[in-house]
Amino acid sequence: MSGSTVISIDAMGGDRGPGPILTGMSHLVSQNPDIRFIVHGDDAKLAELLRKRPDLAAKCEVRHAPGVVLMSEKPSRAIRDGRDSSMWKALETVASGDAKVAISSGNTGALMAMAILILRKSPGIDRPAIAVTWPSRAKHGYNTVLDMGADVRADPRNLLQYAVMGAEYAHLNFGIPRPRVGLLNMGTEPGKGPQEIQEAAKLIEAAESERFEFVGFVEGTDLSKTTADVFVTDGFTGNVTLKAAEGTALFIRDALRDAFRHSFWSRFGALFALTSLSRMRQRIDPRRANGGVFLGLNGAVVKSHGGADAVGFASAVELAAKMAETDFPRRVAAQLAKLDADGDTPLENKAGERGE
Amino acid sequence: MSGSTVISIDAMGGDRGPGPILTGMSHLVSQNPDIRFIVHGDDAKLAELLRKRPDLAAKCEVRHAPGVVLMSEKPSRAIRDGRDSSMWKALETVASGDAKVAISSGNTGALMAMAILILRKSPGIDRPAIAVTWPSRAKHGYNTVLDMGADVRADPRNLLQYAVMGAEYAHLNFGIPRPRVGLLNMGTEPGKGPQEIQEAAKLIEAAESERFEFVGFVEGTDLSKTTADVFVTDGFTGNVTLKAAEGTALFIRDALRDAFRHSFWSRFGALFALTSLSRMRQRIDPRRANGGVFLGLNGAVVKSHGGADAVGFASAVELAAKMAETDFPRRVAAQLAKLDADGDTPLENKAGERGE
Repeated sequence: MSGSTVISIDAMGGDRGPGPILTGMSHLVSQNPDIRFIVHGDDAKLAELLRKRPDLAAKCEVRHAPGVVLMSEKPSRAIRDGRDSSMWKALETVASGDAKVAISSGNTGALMAMAILILRKSPGIDRPAIAVTWPSRAKHGYNTVLDMGADVRADPRNLLQYAVMGAEYAHLNFGIPRPRVGLLNMGTEPGKGPQEIQEAAKLIEAAESERFEFVGFVEGTDLSKTTADVFVTDGFTGNVTLKAAEGTALFIRDALRDAFRHSFWSRFGALFALTSLSRMRQRIDPRRANGGVFLGLNGAVVKSHGGADAVGFASAVELAAKMAETDFPRRVAAQLAKLDADGDTPLENKAGERGE
Repeated sequence: MSGSTVISIDAMGGDRGPGPILTGMSHLVSQNPDIRFIVHGDDAKLAELLRKRPDLAAKCEVRHAPGVVLMSEKPSRAIRDGRDSSMWKALETVASGDAKVAISSGNTGALMAMAILILRKSPGIDRPAIAVTWPSRAKHGYNTVLDMGADVRADPRNLLQYAVMGAEYAHLNFGIPRPRVGLLNMGTEPGKGPQEIQEAAKLIEAAESERFEFVGFVEGTDLSKTTADVFVTDGFTGNVTLKAAEGTALFIRDALRDAFRHSFWSRFGALFALTSLSRMRQRIDPRRANGGVFLGLNGAVVKSHGGADAVGFASAVELAAKMAETDFPRRVAAQLAKLDADGDTPLENKAGERGE
């Protein structure tokens, strides 16, 4: 087995089992021959599935892991009892250096808890975050939003770290030279919103550098616009907001389908509109933006969407490959260390609880 | 001037001036001859506009108010300097008993601050909330969500009050016999999310009655589904979530339009799809759900959407009429008082800071 990028796969996570995961891997291997996989899970089951995909099998090393972390498992219990699981093994393979990135579509809370334990937090990071790409009017089609639920609440210092990590990530993912960071709030006027958001704005403003620009407060409507490239918020707000937007998109999709099914003429119209509709669907397809990325760890971890099919998984793998190729965690750590070393930044004033 | 329902109108609020407001009023008067208006604003301007609408003019009493609260005005300043404004006068007309409900499409923060000062909080309410109707798969087309930004953060006790008010409101607005209340969280498993959300769940569960059922934690995706009828959250989360969903809907609408403009054949398809699309648009049209209702005050106040046109305003007026006809604030107060009198409810354990 050779190839520049090795990706560690938790093949047993996710609601649909290893099938769609392997389909996604196949899809990607056909496009990027440099990728290799270390696949963790039930080896009998995986051997059987790989027998039908010899091209993929040639790129895979299967490592047996008897345990599975259930979607309903509490993170604390998963950490205690899940050391023989495909999830744990997938992360260990990154910690050992055998792979550059781990991917799982399993239980998010368990994955984050295990990742913190196995990979540890990056220097300068108090709390890791999950970043997602959000369909928008941006040139490259997406904005970056974090935290989407790695944590619950965030203090101003956490939000500053999210800003720095999010900007580095948007730079890597979309090639934006100096990403514009916005802080999600219930209004854009100064003085609006909770106290901790106002304090965070001051911290992020003071940390502005050649790596990112701070555009101040942004609102929910801005998420699909071009007001900012990176949107910073706490995990609770991020999670609820993301799911509300997904729910809205699904609701509209269903309403559209119902509308086209309504009569003979609407069915006839739908026939001509088919390519237009599929063009639109591609643009707003949440599966294409699949892959919540864990930022702030000594290693790259991608959470693929639980309900994702092959397209979504391939998109997550693509992203992971990019992170691995550019040594992302090291670059973020360097950025935070620089902030910290700079005497007049507010980080300096709050030492003591640092991860370094 | 006669008629069972008198509505007090702030004609000068809103981004587009009195024009669309009067159009909305006309629209409604043609459907509901029992409605009468007391209209506050610049009397020269209003007289001119009403001259062109004699049918509406017959239903209106104009009261001159020289001041206007700007959309950018801080609430604290609006309270201090805005006593001659159309907004203030519109609220005073409810306090005096001349009208049953006030409607404004002006500055939300100023409207809430003035409403608390002029109408005062209902007995048993610590913090009023703004409720909106959210397009959903529900039979009647909408769910109810609060608080959408009257306040910033909410403690468990505030969230309990939102639950009670929201359930009464959903009962009134949609005729749901025993509305199902859900508490917005980042997951549905017990123990998920912030501490205050878990405490609120306990309070709401204990307050369950023949007036509402508590279905526990709900997620962002549930907002457009039929999981619950009423969704309870703090003002910060509600505001960001609502705006994110609106942004998503607008983004999809634009993507759809672009898709149909793409080629000759897609334009041709769009021709046949037109009625289907307008059918869908009606269903998800946020203007039809227009009207954030202020709950928890001794009087009914409706905030019409700032960018609303005539359809949206008519929808807000219709809702206000319904609230006025059913003496809504009194019914909510009775409900809360009953909860409070009931010895084994948790409200009893937290006396001292009550508004009563």
